[in-house]
Formats: sequence, structure tokens, C-alpha cells
Amino acid sequence: MSLTIASRHICCGGELGFYTVQSEALGLPTTFGAFIPHGASKEKPVPVLYLLAGLTCTQETFLIKANAVRFAAQHGIALVACDTSPRGANVPGETDGWDLGVGAGFYLDATQAPWRAHYRMGTFVGSELPKLVGRHFAVDEARQGIMGHSMGGHGALVHALREPEKWKSVSAFAPIVHPSAVPWGEKAFTAYLGSDRASWAAYDATELLRAGHVHPTTILVDQGEADQFLERELQPHHLEEAAKAAGQKLTLRRQAGYDHSYWFIQSFIEDHMNHHAELLKK
Amino acid sequence: MSLTIASRHICCGGELGFYTVQSEALGLPTTFGAFIPHGASKEKPVPVLYLLAGLTCTQETFLIKANAVRFAAQHGIALVACDTSPRGANVPGETDGWDLGVGAGFYLDATQAPWRAHYRMGTFVGSELPKLVGRHFAVDEARQGIMGHSMGGHGALVHALREPEKWKSVSAFAPIVHPSAVPWGEKAFTAYLGSDRASWAAYDATELLRAGHVHPTTILVDQGEADQFLERELQPHHLEEAAKAAGQKLTLRRQAGYDHSYWFIQSFIEDHMNHHAELLKK
Repeated sequence: MSLTIASRHICCGGELGFYTVQSEALGLPTTFGAFIPHGASKEKPVPVLYLLAGLTCTQETFLIKANAVRFAAQHGIALVACDTSPRGANVPGETDGWDLGVGAGFYLDATQAPWRAHYRMGTFVGSELPKLVGRHFAVDEARQGIMGHSMGGHGALVHALREPEKWKSVSAFAPIVHPSAVPWGEKAFTAYLGSDRASWAAYDATELLRAGHVHPTTILVDQGEADQFLERELQPHHLEEAAKAAGQKLTLRRQAGYDHSYWFIQSFIEDHMNHHAELLKK
Repeated sequence: MSLTIASRHICCGGELGFYTVQSEALGLPTTFGAFIPHGASKEKPVPVLYLLAGLTCTQETFLIKANAVRFAAQHGIALVACDTSPRGANVPGETDGWDLGVGAGFYLDATQAPWRAHYRMGTFVGSELPKLVGRHFAVDEARQGIMGHSMGGHGALVHALREPEKWKSVSAFAPIVHPSAVPWGEKAFTAYLGSDRASWAAYDATELLRAGHVHPTTILVDQGEADQFLERELQPHHLEEAAKAAGQKLTLRRQAGYDHSYWFIQSFIEDHMNHHAELLKK
């Protein structure tokens, strides 16, 4: 798998690039962003944190709007941000709404036609991308963490709970914690996974906890109390209750006045970067 | 002049809003962003820093991409970011190129038809907006600074040199320092100000310095050495030479490897915020 450089910039003393690759999982070219801090080398590989963005975003959004790069540079941690769906799959209807199809891959592998041919962000994020990054950059694959926002928060929680040995730290901003029970998730899962709800549990953080999946570290979640999607789509109490029942350590912070935007993420990104640095730099 | 709230968010403990106003200078509605840090009040107004963005940007760009908000919150400084041109003027050809018309107001008052009816960002930024902000927010109009990027760096330098008593601190990232002598400036100034180059000097930082305009503080400028527009459009040596001849204190830092992007701005924004805080919080 060879990388094509889409653009490359020096940022905060490190190198931030966007790279296009022909993905096997997606069967399409896809672009991701990677920040490699100054001083990383094959002899001295650095921990790496994956950033999963929310609905409508691209590989650039989290990197440019969250202010994570400065803290990654300070901690000596690499960042990797992928796109939120395949692009160019040409599935009928894939651009009809912003919550299904393009920009809304939900970080899972679709099992239903016509989505299943290309909508396989689950395998891309969980397996192909880390291998690719490990091969091309000076990162330590044994020390990788995952963070996400909204749909990406769902992705981060699900991937970390499914493969805790692969993801050594996890945090989320305003995650969709129980997609099986909210409109965004029901729409996407019905399309991607079919109408048999039993198949949805493997991609639902609350259901994974209920089924005994736990992460050995504390999960950090920030949720704005003025988030416009709080009641309808996010419902963090499901995560809280399932974590308590499962014995999962969880720090869920309800932040008064904050909404669903990157203004909210900017405000607490430093805490999240510290959380990951502490776990990944051990 | 009444403000309509376009959106409002809590960010880094303060309040960040976008407000639409019917501008007298522009003869059109325009939207600006304002961040007011926690603790500001009519009894305890805070200093305010104006952010001028570059070609193609909007009132949101500098605020969301530069990472300035966290430092403004720490310093207790307000931020205000305006649009880069009028919108909806319907001047023929105003959207034909990204370097003239919409998104390219150059922070000046056009004197030539058909631009002069609405393209009056000079008066808007220099006079109308500060008065408006002073009336509606808990800021101290006696302590205001100005910072800009590229075309906005030109705007910041020009406004500060023309009215140093109004702008107590000034800095720029990759500014157009001598628009009269480079393609972007020649195109815009010919359209907005006409073919008589003598009239251009009032909006050219290098020419203002040559004419004896100086700012009592040190001007801080960062310029990336890998900036794709360095040779053709920016040419910081003009500023350096004119400042030296005029006795203007200038810290011009050439940053190896950095380009023209907000990745560059993110990397040095903390220094710029410290620069303004030191001057504005005296």
C-alpha cells in the first residue's frame, strides 16, 4: 500500500500531512491526516492517538478545529485522523441525508447491500489504517489510543471495548453511546446492518458493556449540558448505567453550558490529551 | 444598530457568539464573531483584540482554526473577528476570482465604481465595528489591538500605522506588507482605488512607514520560509527595510519550514497572544 501525499505542513514543530491510499477494506482511495511530532524516529517511535470525527466531517476537521496538535507536540504523541466514510462509492442515496452514507460511515462494516461493498470503515479504522500507519511512520503500534466526537465518540468507544488490547486509551466528546436506541443509530444501523437488532449490539457501546466487554483503563467522556443532541441522540446515562453494572471505570463529566460544537472540544481537549498521554507514555 | 444573534457557544469558559448587524459603512448586513472571556463586565471591561483573516475566509475562520480562544481566555482578553468583505453587494464580477470582490475586501474603502457603494471594510473595521463592539460588550475601547493573516496581516499593519492611538498593539502572520508592488495588491488596488498609484500609499504598510507613520510599540510578524506566496506576494524584506529607515521597532521572525496555512498560525499563536496581552494589559 503506497501513500500519495495530498499536502504536508510543518505544525508546532512536527510534520502534519494528508495522505491518500487505495484502501483494501473500502475498495476505494481514501485520505487520512497524520501528525508526527518532532523527534520521532524508527529507533524512538512515539505513541499514536486516533481521532474519529462526527457526522459530515472529513479527515481534516478534528485536526484543524480541536487544537489537539499543540498538545500532541508537547507530549510527543502522533495523531491520525481518518475520513468519516468512504467517498465515491456511488451507492444510490448515499448523499441524500447527512446522517447516512457519505460523511456518516459510523466506523462499522456494513453487512447489507448496497452498502456492504464499500462501507467498511470498521475494518479500515480497526485494522488496515493502524497497520498502514505503523509501516509508514515512526509510531509505536503497541501504544495506540482512540478519541472521538459524536459519531466518532461512538466509534472510539466501540473499537476500544471490542479490542481493548489494541487500543490502550479511550476518550470521547459527546459520543453516541447507545446507537441502537436513538434515531441516528437506528437509521444507520438499519441500513448498514439490517433490521435484525441482535446484530447491532456489536457496534453499540452500551450493549457491549452489557455483554461483558470492558476496557482496563478509565474511559473519559465530556458531554455538554447545552448540547442540542443530548436528549434525542446522545443520552449519556445509558453509558453511565451500563458502565456501573459492568464495573467499567468511567469519568463522565457533564459540562454546564457547552454545546455539541468544536468550541466545546477546544475547551477540554487539553484534559483529553493529558488523559491519553498518561496512559500511552507509561 | 441592533445585533441579531446568529449563534452562541460557550468556549474555554467564555462566550463566543456570531452576530449579524446592518452595517452603515457597508450598506449591507454583515456578521462578526466575538469571544468575551469569563469575568468581563461593564464595571470590569477587558482589552479586545481584533482578528483579520485572509483571502477567501469568513468571520469564523480565524476564530475556529487559529487556537487563539484558549489564550484569550487565559489572558482575559476579548476577541473580535469580522468578515473579509461585504456579502451580497452584487457587484458584477465580484465572485469571478478569489482575490478580488467577495472574500477579498482588503480592509479598505473603495473609491471606484462599482465597488465604492459597498466595499468599505476600511471604515467598518476601523470605526464602525469597534464602536458597535464597545456599545454591546464589556470591552475597554482604550485597550484594543489588531492581528491579521496574509490580506488580514496587511489590514492589521495598515490600520495600526494609520491610527496608532486607536490600536495599542499589532501583529501579523505572513502579511502582504507592500500590496502596491505585488500581484494581489495591484489587482485589488486598481479595482478598488483606481489606476492612480499615489492613492494606494494610504493602504500600503511599507509606504506608510516611508511616509513617516510609525507605531509606538514593537510590531510582531511571523513569516514562514516555506510559504508558497513568499516571493510573489509577501516579500517581508520591504517591511523590514522601511521599518529600519523609519525607526519602527519590528520583530520579524522567519520560521523555517512553515507555510501559509493555519497550521503555521496555530504554531505561533501563543507568542502573538502574549505579545498583545503584555501591551494591552498594562
